Amino acid sequence: MRKSFHESLQDLKNDMLKMGSMVEDAINKSIRALKECDLELAQKVKDEDDKIDDMEIILEEKCTKLIALQQPVAKDLRMIIVISKLVTDLERIGDHASNIANMVLEIGDEPLIKPLIDIPRMTEIVNRRLRESLDAFVNMDIDLAKKVAQEDEEIDVIDEQILRELLTFMMEDPRTIKQATSLMFISRFLERIGDHSTNICERIVYMVSGEREAY
Amino acid sequence: MRKSFHESLQDLKNDMLKMGSMVEDAINKSIRALKECDLELAQKVKDEDDKIDDMEIILEEKCTKLIALQQPVAKDLRMIIVISKLVTDLERIGDHASNIANMVLEIGDEPLIKPLIDIPRMTEIVNRRLRESLDAFVNMDIDLAKKVAQEDEEIDVIDEQILRELLTFMMEDPRTIKQATSLMFISRFLERIGDHSTNICERIVYMVSGEREAY
Repeated sequence: MRKSFHESLQDLKNDMLKMGSMVEDAINKSIRALKECDLELAQKVKDEDDKIDDMEIILEEKCTKLIALQQPVAKDLRMIIVISKLVTDLERIGDHASNIANMVLEIGDEPLIKPLIDIPRMTEIVNRRLRESLDAFVNMDIDLAKKVAQEDEEIDVIDEQILRELLTFMMEDPRTIKQATSLMFISRFLERIGDHSTNICERIVYMVSGEREAY
Repeated sequence: MRKSFHESLQDLKNDMLKMGSMVEDAINKSIRALKECDLELAQKVKDEDDKIDDMEIILEEKCTKLIALQQPVAKDLRMIIVISKLVTDLERIGDHASNIANMVLEIGDEPLIKPLIDIPRMTEIVNRRLRESLDAFVNMDIDLAKKVAQEDEEIDVIDEQILRELLTFMMEDPRTIKQATSLMFISRFLERIGDHSTNICERIVYMVSGEREAY
């Protein structure tokens, strides 16, 4: 029996949440690999990125088929197109986790130049915002979407702070330069992940209300 | 009189090419601002990014309307969905140009620590690949798409080379550290722009042939 449109849409949303969990897991693992200097774990994050890439293609395919078979209009069509774009945001977030893992491999097993405080804090915020943005989508919660989009600045401030602190390390001791630049890139990757949550939330707000304002 | 589906599709492609030119122009201006230390031009790139953001929303809207009104299936539907994703790639490329402009403003009017050779060379390659990827889409030229996707490594090699060279500057003279990190980020933004052209080409290959191979 052919699934109803709303059953198929629900399946699609569930798949998207599953992809969201995979991505969050990749972010957590990449930062744990950094903290614990666990190069095997970093390599695992890189290897598992293929699965996230596959999910994007599978979900895009499902979106296209659902449009072709059921020819939804108005709100339903808009929602499927938004899903097809959200999965690309998720895939890019997966790429950033993989990029972080790359940096961890570059740092290798040399001891960290400083205890990590801001980066794990930033990771928590980034992951919370990612979960909230997907929740906002699934529940069509425009207030939550607006809140998450507006909070983007918090991450930018931490990123800026990390950059400045690392610059002082580099200036005081040139031996820290190589690792410090790797940590800078990691911080910047986390910041980019945060941007994707903002994109997701802006799409939700636009889909529901037609408001195009950037937060 | 209502436009035929193929007229509307042609309009959409033309708009997309126009957006591609805007984006290319933004990349060129941001790098010219860097070379000529032209802070006004850098600010202009940032200000004009809004227009690129608007284009994304307008083109997405056109894609959604075209699907809703004409209910295309199979190849035509797939093509419109690909366009709706390409415009997001173009918008992100615009963001990267704006990020480069930000870095130019951070460097300010201090003299460059070295003559720029690799960054302008990378910019030329990045812009050529962007043009080629859009040409490949408009002409459904799968050979060109494969060629562009495969050439991604050239840019990664230059980015890596720039990073290494800047690291040596930083180690030799700590006064160069701040500007060198800005130049590193600029190189990385160009590399990300290159990734978007690869994404575009991979989408074209998949759309035409169903091959999912990453290049």
